[in-house]
Parts: sequence; C-alpha cells; structure tokens
Amino acid sequence: MSSALTDLLRRPIVQAPMAGGISVPQLAAAVSEAGGLGFLAAGYKTADGMYQEIKQLRGLTGGPFGVNVFMPQPEHPGTGPGTPGGTGSAPPSATVEVYANQLAGEAAWYQTELGDPDSGRDDGYDAKLAVLLDDPVPVVSFHFGVPSHKALDALRRAGTFTLVTATTAEEALAVQEAGADAVIAQGVEAGGHQGTHRDVRENDGAGIGLLSLVAQLRESVSIPIVAAGGVMRGSQIAAVLAAGASAAQLGTAFLATPESGAHALHKRALTDPLFVRTELTRAFTGRPARALVNRFMREHGPYAPAAYPEINHLTQPLRKAAAKAGDAQGMALWAGQGHRLARELPAGQLVEVLAAELDAATAALTTGSVQR
Amino acid sequence: MSSALTDLLRRPIVQAPMAGGISVPQLAAAVSEAGGLGFLAAGYKTADGMYQEIKQLRGLTGGPFGVNVFMPQPEHPGTGPGTPGGTGSAPPSATVEVYANQLAGEAAWYQTELGDPDSGRDDGYDAKLAVLLDDPVPVVSFHFGVPSHKALDALRRAGTFTLVTATTAEEALAVQEAGADAVIAQGVEAGGHQGTHRDVRENDGAGIGLLSLVAQLRESVSIPIVAAGGVMRGSQIAAVLAAGASAAQLGTAFLATPESGAHALHKRALTDPLFVRTELTRAFTGRPARALVNRFMREHGPYAPAAYPEINHLTQPLRKAAAKAGDAQGMALWAGQGHRLARELPAGQLVEVLAAELDAATAALTTGSVQR
Repeated sequence: MSSALTDLLRRPIVQAPMAGGISVPQLAAAVSEAGGLGFLAAGYKTADGMYQEIKQLRGLTGGPFGVNVFMPQPEHPGTGPGTPGGTGSAPPSATVEVYANQLAGEAAWYQTELGDPDSGRDDGYDAKLAVLLDDPVPVVSFHFGVPSHKALDALRRAGTFTLVTATTAEEALAVQEAGADAVIAQGVEAGGHQGTHRDVRENDGAGIGLLSLVAQLRESVSIPIVAAGGVMRGSQIAAVLAAGASAAQLGTAFLATPESGAHALHKRALTDPLFVRTELTRAFTGRPARALVNRFMREHGPYAPAAYPEINHLTQPLRKAAAKAGDAQGMALWAGQGHRLARELPAGQLVEVLAAELDAATAALTTGSVQR
Repeated sequence: MSSALTDLLRRPIVQAPMAGGISVPQLAAAVSEAGGLGFLAAGYKTADGMYQEIKQLRGLTGGPFGVNVFMPQPEHPGTGPGTPGGTGSAPPSATVEVYANQLAGEAAWYQTELGDPDSGRDDGYDAKLAVLLDDPVPVVSFHFGVPSHKALDALRRAGTFTLVTATTAEEALAVQEAGADAVIAQGVEAGGHQGTHRDVRENDGAGIGLLSLVAQLRESVSIPIVAAGGVMRGSQIAAVLAAGASAAQLGTAFLATPESGAHALHKRALTDPLFVRTELTRAFTGRPARALVNRFMREHGPYAPAAYPEINHLTQPLRKAAAKAGDAQGMALWAGQGHRLARELPAGQLVEVLAAELDAATAALTTGSVQR
C-alpha cells in the first residue's frame, strides 16, 4: 500500500466491514491489536450510531482502524427530484409494490409487517462524512460508488487514508480519477453486497473472479489494490500479493469469529452441510449480494427487483422475525464462496494464523517446494 | 504435479485444449517446444481426426503434449434407452424444438439451415479411448465428467498421465476417487465450456472463482491441482502456485497467438473495445460456456435450453455461416474474463514471457518488494 497505509499495517490483512451488526467494535479491535486493520461498518447506522462505535473502538485499541460508508444511491428516474437521468435499471415504485405483494405471505408467516420501502435513500451520507471530517479516523472506505473529488481531498487533508470498492477495471479507473488513495478489488466471490457503482440488470452474470480482477486492475490503475472476495487462507493472501495486490480484505473469515456480532445461526450456517453453495441475489435488499442459498432466496430471488435500498427497508422486519424465530431459511446468510473454510478462532488468533500461512506459502513458492 | 508430470514440464504452464479448430497441432507444438504443455482438443472430432492431429503434432515436436476428450453425456430422461434416471434438468426434445423455432430467423438471415440436433451424443468417446490406449500419448484430460476407474487405470498402465476437470470440491473428490492423476480446477472465469460434471439448472450462478476453488480443492483432495480460468499473466501463475496449485492452464491467452486456429474475427474481438464483457451462456451449445457478449447471446441466451449436445449440433451451421459472412455478432466468441489482457505474441514467446513474469512475481513476493 502507499506508505501511509503500510505504516498502519503490520500485516497485509484487512477485516472487511460487514454492516448489519456484524463488524462490532470488539471484532475490529481484536484485528487491529493483532496487526491487521479492523473495520467498522457505518452502513444502516445513523451518524451518531457510527460515532458511538468509533468511540467504543478507540477505547478498546490504540491501533489503526477503518470505517466503511455506503454511497448514497441515485434517485430512480421518475421517482423523485434530482434525478440523474435514465439508467435503464429504473425500478418504478410499482415494481417494489409488486414485490411487496409477493412477500405478503412471508409477513403473515413470521407474524410481522413489511417495512416501509421509502424510509430513506442516502443512509445519512452527509452527516457521516461531517463526523469523519470533524474527528478523523485512520482509514475510511466507500462502497456502492465513488465519492466526490472534494470529499476525498478533505479526508486526505484530515489525515485519513481513503479506499473505494471497484468490481471492474472501469470502476477502478473512476476510483483513481476521483483521488482515492487505494482501490478495493472486489471479486465476484465476495460475500454480502457487490460494490458495483451502478446496479444495472445488464451487469447480471458479469461478476469478475478476484484473480482476474486484480490482474486487470494492476494494469489499469497505479494506486494500491486491496483484494477482496473468497479469501479464507494465508495461501490466498500470498496469491493476491503475487498477483499485484498490496493487502487482502477478508469478511466471511472474520464473520465466524467469536468477536463478530453475526447471529449464532448465521455463524453456524457457514459450515453447515445443509448450505452447500452461495449465490448473488436481490431477494433481500434489491441489490446483488452473495448469501448462502436458503428458502427465502430460492423463492424470491428469481423475481426480486433492482431497487436498493427500498427492498432492504421492505424485508428488514422479515429478516429480524426469522432470526428471532430461529429460522435460518428466512435470514440473509451473507457469505463468500469460501464459507466452508471458515474457522471459529478468536479474531486476533485468526490474524496470527493467516500471517503464518502467508509466510509459509510465500516460502514454499520461492523454494520451489510447491508440489509439482 | 506428480513426478510423472514434473518430468514432462519445464514450466508450470499448460495450454488449455480449445475445441472447434482452435488448438491446432501448430499451437500445441509451439507451447511444448517452449517447455510448457501443449494440448490438442479431441472434442467434436472423429477418433481418426484426433489421431491425424496427434500424428501431425508428433511430427512437429518431440516434446510432451496432451489430448483432451469430452465425456459422453448421459441420455436425457425419456429420450432414449439406457436412461440413467431423472436429473431434474431433462430437456425433452420439445424444448429443443422450441429453441429451433426461435432460431428460424437466424437461419433465414444467414441463408443456411439449422443442424440436426440428434447427430450424436457421445462424441466418439469409446473409439477415441481405444486409439489413445493403442498408441499412448503423454497426457490425456477429460471434460464434462469423470471417466471410469477402469479407463483411468488402463491409461495409467499405458504410461499416460490423466487429468479431469472439476468446478467444485465435490467434483474434485469424485475425480480423485476415480483414480485420476491430477485435477483441473476450473474457475468461473474460464472461457468456453465449464466442465461441470452434470449440467443442472440449479447450478446456474454458482460458479466459483478460481482462487476460492483452488483453496477449497487444496483441502479436499491430495492429488495435484492444475488451475484454470482467467489466467493471462505470469503474476497470476505465481498466485495460483502460492494458493496450492502445481501449474496453471491458459486458454484465452493462447487463443490470441498467431499459431492458434481461431478465426481472425475471434482473435480480434478479444481486445476489441466493442466487446467489453463475457458471460456464461447456453445459447450456442446448450451447456454453460463463457463467451464475449454479442448479439446472438443477448437475443437467445435468456431462453436457451439446457440441452447439450443437441443445441451445439443445431447452431453449428449458424456459427459457420456467421463466420463466413464476417459477422462476429453471430459467432461463438469464446473468451475468459481476462480477454482484454490477450497478447498477440507467438505461442513459444508467450510461454517465455509468462515464465519471466512468474519469476519476477515470485521474487517480488519474497523480497517484499510488492507495493505496500
């Protein structure tokens, strides 16, 4: 990474921010204390909720850490003021309503109500940015789009290192041009939301594997690359470093640790033979996100509209009720393609194990002791 | 790889077999002469056609080489004798007929006839195996399924090293249990046909990225792994070796070389900005295969049935006519996700460049000169 981030990291290991209560301060602290980079997820939180977590984290570690912010989503054409023009992926509120009707049975089953799809589109972006400029943190990353040049400049002046997710070479170029310090190359293997800058149906099925993506980005941009997607072992970290990345970002690997705030059912599902595979689905949030295939995805994925964050608001009470009922088949079991390699180690210990595996893989590669 | 294959390879670089006239003897010879492993593709050929190519290749190089064979496809339930039972993915001949009707306009446009979907299912498997046992070659690989224990044993006794493609850890286990010498880990990034053992609709969207797949296979099987899918640079070869593979197999990278038999339009399309992305499609052959997205895929992909090899037979005259008319929008432009990194170097020179890149990436990884 750029010298700024190298100074922050003893190990090229970044804990991916996982919104929805998974990336709690305890997890981030354990990772940062072990020499990796812990991360908080500001997504779905208020600016104040984010700030409370930052304060809590600072109380747990003096180490470096990051905060991830979701970019506000453009208005869908025809649904509000400030419309940035037709995208071809516009979900008129009618399609959200159709989906709501299709989910009526779920609401009845879990004895709850559907959420209000119109409970806000911008996830408190401006307020969060103001907090992060007012009381700067070491690292801020962005998902679902590219911040303005101005915002990235302001963060840099505040001493903050900035990262932005990209899923294609074109997106990575946009990230570099906006002035970010580094780009997160998110492969199609990654659990949770793909950070694609614009969710258009045309992109469906076009997700790029991590190793291809890193190779393409390495020749498209000059800023450092953090590789994310399906990384569960130190040997894979060695692999992405060999391919040209400066560090790896791991989500699912840390989701399984005791420090993570993931629901116990979610943690257990990662290695439950009942869940054999993952898929990208719009069923839960209206934007492609990777989860273990369960009943909810099978039933609703095929016709879920491209309408984020409306669908996220709509299904939230269903997911809460399913979790409360102990029904993993109705929850969003976010997981990357490597989920079956999850280990329940404490997060700090996981960082140590990953670092040792990285060293071993590196040594094996050069001494030629790789099995050939 | 196992000592047997190590002896054959000076470089951990395997040229992927590409059926349909791409992997010609000239290409395989150039790769083998440069210290990689050249490959012929027996798919879509008669046993005698395959043998003629083997003889030709032997005249061009004394080096080791491989021959790839397609596994015969199980009869679809209800369409013939010897039905292995319902798979849930059965394409009754009716769905093939519906697709034929939908392609009628294409046939009219290209002034040709559709092919006969029933022109054979087994691709001459038994005859090819007999030839390969009668006059053994150094390496034989299999795609679309697992050969019998007996067949693999017979090849081993004949002195042939055997490889079988797998796209999941479960498939890799089946490959190992059948007694193959090594497994090809084919990531979702790979161009052309995915070698999934059974084409069931349920697998759609479940393709695993190469780096995740190698990590999973490394902990599922003990036989050597050859990593395939999107590999275009030596740094990616270093990456898959670090992840636990013994060699990398590259298709699209060699497709672009002057020695490959690919149509000039196909070669040009790989780096033509008109074709920005690839997708898995059943439009051309009835089985998921990755190609550059063009008009034919966009129009017919969404409703193409799971019916290989019937659809392959059906569309063959269309593809030929499109190529003859110089219309890349009607051809099957097989390509992996790394296509934009294709280089037009002679194949032997490409092997040299890849090997140098591999060495450089390995050295950078260990001296820590990776940009951090």
